[in-house]
Amino acid sequence: MTYCVAMRLNAGLVFLSDSRTNAGVDHVSTYRKMTVFERPGDRVMVLMSSGNLAVTQAVRLVLTDAMGSETLWTVNSMARAAALVGEAIREVHRRDGASLASFGIDFNCNFILGGQIKGEDCRLFNIYSAGNFIEAHAESPYFQIGEFKYGKPIIDRLIRPETPLDVAAKCALISMDSTLRSNISVGLPLDLLLYSRDSLSVSRFVTITQDNQYFNLIRGNWGHQLRKVFDELPDPDWDQMPSSESWPVFEEQIRSRDQ
Amino acid sequence: MTYCVAMRLNAGLVFLSDSRTNAGVDHVSTYRKMTVFERPGDRVMVLMSSGNLAVTQAVRLVLTDAMGSETLWTVNSMARAAALVGEAIREVHRRDGASLASFGIDFNCNFILGGQIKGEDCRLFNIYSAGNFIEAHAESPYFQIGEFKYGKPIIDRLIRPETPLDVAAKCALISMDSTLRSNISVGLPLDLLLYSRDSLSVSRFVTITQDNQYFNLIRGNWGHQLRKVFDELPDPDWDQMPSSESWPVFEEQIRSRDQ
Repeated sequence: MTYCVAMRLNAGLVFLSDSRTNAGVDHVSTYRKMTVFERPGDRVMVLMSSGNLAVTQAVRLVLTDAMGSETLWTVNSMARAAALVGEAIREVHRRDGASLASFGIDFNCNFILGGQIKGEDCRLFNIYSAGNFIEAHAESPYFQIGEFKYGKPIIDRLIRPETPLDVAAKCALISMDSTLRSNISVGLPLDLLLYSRDSLSVSRFVTITQDNQYFNLIRGNWGHQLRKVFDELPDPDWDQMPSSESWPVFEEQIRSRDQ
Repeated sequence: MTYCVAMRLNAGLVFLSDSRTNAGVDHVSTYRKMTVFERPGDRVMVLMSSGNLAVTQAVRLVLTDAMGSETLWTVNSMARAAALVGEAIREVHRRDGASLASFGIDFNCNFILGGQIKGEDCRLFNIYSAGNFIEAHAESPYFQIGEFKYGKPIIDRLIRPETPLDVAAKCALISMDSTLRSNISVGLPLDLLLYSRDSLSVSRFVTITQDNQYFNLIRGNWGHQLRKVFDELPDPDWDQMPSSESWPVFEEQIRSRDQ
């Protein structure tokens, strides 16, 4: 499994991905899911993927081997870049889809593509298995792919377009921590990339292993403080919650049957 | 959608369910998902369901209309009670499964059954669509059905077998709050039931509406304190995280193509 999250903020973009893949519990490997396309001063694009590893690798190969007139290095808008990823997905589907289907395997891949090309603002896209895509806007400033649910509540609570990049990175790491705890098929190391709007070069890129002191501090403190907040919240005040007049549905009937 | 959670603790059992069902976004209704079977001094059983509402209601009807020699009122162990629920599921599947399949509808239902019968300890079961089931033990003291992922991390962090009932109820409500925020198809009112071990009668049963002051206090304070803890955690210390030596996979190739 995989967990990737990307945020589009006023200050720029944050990308975080894990590196665990598994094909059954006895076949767990480390594959990194983030690819960076950087030409300083001109463009930075970050591509993250989840889904069937053979499919997502095939899509990347098509994308990077493309001999057509347009590549990620030549497109002049991020939307066109997202469309290129979609076209690469469709090419792999044309080639491999029927064979996969004959083995009962879903053609399953999801991509997040974000970045900035000179002359445009930062943009962030979520590209589906069918090759179509959506773009992040202020009202929904982030995308997740893979095992996203465990880590979603904390992002919903904290991330706004005005959140600074470092703060958003902290939130992404906590979101990842919740996912790591609840799904063993998501694992370290993590790739974390920060992009400052209009910088047109990667601002920060770090690979976070189990020895990373900051991540370990966040993990430990967050859990510890969470428990403290939890303990400080009052226990239920039952006097203020009188027992319901009506018992749950069916109970009356069941009671009467017992008489 | 639905979210139900039940915990088996040394002190007893906690059950919490929402009451939202939807068949498409234009057909949202309130149906309660908790049924209580109580004969004070002899047995208390609580049944919660998720999945296709027509299927889960049919299973309850079979269970409560059962004319066989054994019913939930006559079984002498919770394991046998769980097996009866499984048999009711299989009866509904025999009757309705093919018709549902012909409309492309999954036969989808999940049940949590917990309680205590005189002479036995408290027990808690998770019963699947196929009618088979598993029991909760100290190492995994809780079950969730329905939209479970958003509310799972907080339970994983906080619930242990020795957690007191009131504290577990508080945790269940926070878990529900995270789910309510992230999935609009889970909704109020909530049914909350607490059972004290060996009491052989329902200890607390409350229906929580949007006017419930305690739940609103928990919701507000949790979010507020969570943000405070988050703000107090240090932002990333980049000096301590030097940029990775290796860029993400594929980047080198892509760079070289660009030259």
